[in-house]
Formats: sequence, C-alpha cells, structure tokens
Amino acid sequence: MNICIIGLGLIGGSVGLDLRGRPGITRVGVDFHPEHANTAVSLGLVDRVEDEGTALPEADVVVLAIPVNAIKALLPGILDAVRPEATVIDLGSTKSVIGRAVVAHARRSQYVAAHPVAGTENSGPHAAVRGLFQDKVNIICDPERSGPRHLQVAENIFSMLGLKTIFMGSDEHDKHVAYVSHLSHVSSFLLGQTVLDMEKDEKQIFNLAGSGFASTVRLAKSSPDMWTPIVEQNAEYLGQALAEYIMHLQRFQYHLMKRNTREIYAMLREANQIRRVLDRQAHEPKAEIVVNE
Amino acid sequence: MNICIIGLGLIGGSVGLDLRGRPGITRVGVDFHPEHANTAVSLGLVDRVEDEGTALPEADVVVLAIPVNAIKALLPGILDAVRPEATVIDLGSTKSVIGRAVVAHARRSQYVAAHPVAGTENSGPHAAVRGLFQDKVNIICDPERSGPRHLQVAENIFSMLGLKTIFMGSDEHDKHVAYVSHLSHVSSFLLGQTVLDMEKDEKQIFNLAGSGFASTVRLAKSSPDMWTPIVEQNAEYLGQALAEYIMHLQRFQYHLMKRNTREIYAMLREANQIRRVLDRQAHEPKAEIVVNE
Repeated sequence: MNICIIGLGLIGGSVGLDLRGRPGITRVGVDFHPEHANTAVSLGLVDRVEDEGTALPEADVVVLAIPVNAIKALLPGILDAVRPEATVIDLGSTKSVIGRAVVAHARRSQYVAAHPVAGTENSGPHAAVRGLFQDKVNIICDPERSGPRHLQVAENIFSMLGLKTIFMGSDEHDKHVAYVSHLSHVSSFLLGQTVLDMEKDEKQIFNLAGSGFASTVRLAKSSPDMWTPIVEQNAEYLGQALAEYIMHLQRFQYHLMKRNTREIYAMLREANQIRRVLDRQAHEPKAEIVVNE
Repeated sequence: MNICIIGLGLIGGSVGLDLRGRPGITRVGVDFHPEHANTAVSLGLVDRVEDEGTALPEADVVVLAIPVNAIKALLPGILDAVRPEATVIDLGSTKSVIGRAVVAHARRSQYVAAHPVAGTENSGPHAAVRGLFQDKVNIICDPERSGPRHLQVAENIFSMLGLKTIFMGSDEHDKHVAYVSHLSHVSSFLLGQTVLDMEKDEKQIFNLAGSGFASTVRLAKSSPDMWTPIVEQNAEYLGQALAEYIMHLQRFQYHLMKRNTREIYAMLREANQIRRVLDRQAHEPKAEIVVNE
C-alpha cells in the first residue's frame, strides 16, 4: 500500500514514524517546504519525498496533515487528482468548513474526515515523535458521507497508530473542540502575552514562574501558522466559548474587587469539580470504541 | 534543633519529609485537624504532633504552612508565644498583608517572610512529596526587617530543602506573583468551569479532551481553602492582571468575530515569544542566588 503523507510536520511526521517498518506499506512524503521534505527523509519520517503531481496518482491512501486553511483549499483538487480507488483522509482540527468544501464533490465518498486529538506544542519535522497517537481519541466526522471501504481503510490506519475512533457530526465536533481544545490554546496564548507585557518593565519576573505557570502557558508555544486558520474556521463556536470564559473571569473579578469571600470560594469550589474529569481521564480508557461495521 | 511545623499539608508535610533524618533536627507537627495530624505522623512527615500551646514555647524554629488568612491571624500570637531566640518563618504565597500584620510587633525581627515558589495541585498530608522544593526559587521578603541570625537560620533550612533564595520587597513580590502564579490559577479554575458548564448538556465532551486541555486546567484542581485567601490578599495586583488578561481575550475575540486574519496571526505570533521564557526555564538555573552575608 502506497501512503502519501502531505505535510511532514508534527502530525504528518508522527504518522510516518508510526508506520515505519509496517510490511507492505510505502510512505511517500509531500511537503511544500523543500527543507522540511529533506529533513523528513533524513529523520526517517517517510521512505521518500515526491512532488504532489507525481505522488497523488500513485497513492492508495492520501493523508493530509497541513494547516486547515490549506486542507480546505487543496482537498477538492486532491480528490480530482487521485485514482478512483484511493482513500483521502484529512487530520485537521476543524471539520465543518473543510467538509463544506467537498460536500458536493463527485468523489466525496473517497474522503474520510478525521481529527486525532493528539499533539504537542512543537511543530515541524523535528517535532515528530513515535507513539504520539497511542491510546488517544480519533474523531471521524460525518461517516455516512464516506464509502464503507474508505472508512475501513482509514480505520485500519488509525488502529495501527493506536488511536481509538469515535464518530460524530462535523458541527458537533467543532462545538466540542472549541471548548476542550481551541479555548485552552487561546487562553494559554493570551495568558502568556499578559505575562510578557508585565516583563517589559520587570526583568526578574520569570525567575518566579513556577511549574504551574509553565503548564498553563505551554500551549502558547504552539505554531501560529497552524492555529490562526483553526481559530478562524471555528470562529463561531470558539467565540461562544470565549464569551463564556470572559464572563466567568469578569464575574470573578467583580467578586474579587468586592472582597466577596463566600462567592470567590464558591466559584473555586465549583470549578474544582474538573478534578473528577481529569482524574477519570488519567485512570480510564479515553473513549468507548464505536465499531463501525 | 526543634522545628515546629504548623500545617501538615502539601507544603508543611513536604518540608517535614525533606528534613527527615537530618542529624540534630526534631520535627514537631501542629495541625488543627486531628486526622491530618495523625496521618502526618503515620506518613513520617513529622516525628510527633503536639498542640500549639505545648509546641510553641519549646520550638527553636516555627514554620507556618497554613492558608494565608490563618497566617495573618495567628502570626502575631505566635511571635508572642515563642521564646525570644526562636525564629518564625511563614511560607505563604502572599506577603504584604501578612507583613503589615506584624510590622509594629515588638518581635518583628524574629520573623522571616518567605515564599518558596513550589507546589502541586494536590493538598493535605497525602500530597506531601520529597524533593518538592529542589532547585526551586524561594523569595525572602523585606529581609531588612528580620534579624541577621534569624535570616541565617531560615536560609540554612531553605538550603537543606534545595531552594535557591532571592530577596525582594513584599509589594514587588505580590505584584510579580499576581502575574506568574495567581493569574495562572484563576485562569485555570475558570477555564475548567467554562468546560464544566458545557458538559451539562454534552456528556461526551470529556472524551475529546486532549493532553493540552489537561495541562491548561491542572491548576483548577487546587484547594479553594488555600486559594480563596490568597486571591483576596492579593486582590489589587491580581485584579490588574485579570483586567489585562480580559482585555487581551476581548481584543482577540473582536478580531476573531471580524475574521481579521492578520491581527489574529500577529497576536498568536507575539504570544509565541513566551517560548523564549519557558525554554530558558527548562535549561538554565531558575535564579541567580543572592547570597546574604
């Protein structure tokens, strides 16, 4: 099986690493940055790199691991360029906008919309790591729009990566990830900015930053090239999540200014319930696997 | 040396663990919750527990590791109760309000105001861990108000814990930690709350929460009993930090609603500079040690 991975950064590179050495699989890489392509080969992320025009007509499976605006722009043309038997999978963090770009495409059934909820704050081929997807959740969206054989091909690959696949609609997906992923990233970026502003006058401030700070702002190291199109494509739900978050912050600030001990305590106590969620995450399987047969 | 640790939770218990087996040191614990006191002895956090009335007059050093409102309330009486040679150290996360409570106390010079910037999101005696303070920064505030011998006694203990001590005024301390610690905690609590609200309708949401979410909301598991008085005592600077953070969030939301790609990108790119800070933290010593001689 010839698997063409488009985009050889954190996600695409990690897919390539996890598929290395699988019998019968050839990994062909495509990257629009020549230096990334060369690095990917030297790191063993793919067996070889080719240009898009050569790679696409030869591929049995195409995996798209590029920023979501590029996925939206390129996906229709990729479906045009592949063979009628090929499966095309995208791994983008938003799903509705991308789905709409191909909803009426004659080859829509060859496309499987996926989002493996995995990553780190690093980017580029050097960020690729083996086992990135192990035991993580993968979301396949709108499975009724994909042909059963293409779904099966995609699920087999996800299963090789150690992912547990669940299914939902694109809109539901985007709403959920706005809260549990995109909002976390934006809050982290802007918390980092707030502290950077403070640093302009106060050089010593970072001596004081403990591990709590580091964990809260870790995501602020993420790639703006990847994240700008994600937040734009999910602007509606992320906007709702941000509005709600800002409302909680302002309510807290109000009680803080009034020194309303009881209200402050009640807010922290209620938010504490997140422990139940995080501890469940740590001790239980991440998701029930929905077998699609 | 008889060291009396008041408060046998995460911080006090970890101090006790790190001092275990040091020749010449007896660790006497005081805890106002009898079950915590018993647990602390069974976990080896202290050699024995006593009530305050017995422990204080015997102590060479008193270490206060209780919520900052309790430190403020009890510190004057503790200075009254200890011997004239004893050193009293507090480990609270705020310093100005506590300092003002004893600024005119006849025994102010016996008191050393400290804040080891270390901790986890857990609390209680079971949360105590060995090595919690290793290579972390300790801030001693207003050292000119403490007697040189008391400073020396305190620094020796901090040094046994592996802490690197720096010095600053209480007001400067509170301003800095509002940004690098207290704001991180509040943002994490309220991010957790935002997602909990969403969960009321959407049970599946937590299946989707990746490691990014977990790291961003980890601090929301922290103890409200400890954090309510911290945010109240630092309400002024934390209020400023919150105002700035909310301003950044609202500006981001405005650009998001307008789909101002260029502005969104610029904001994420600028916040990305936090990488330089976090990476410095990871690779360099946390602080230059200011030797007080």
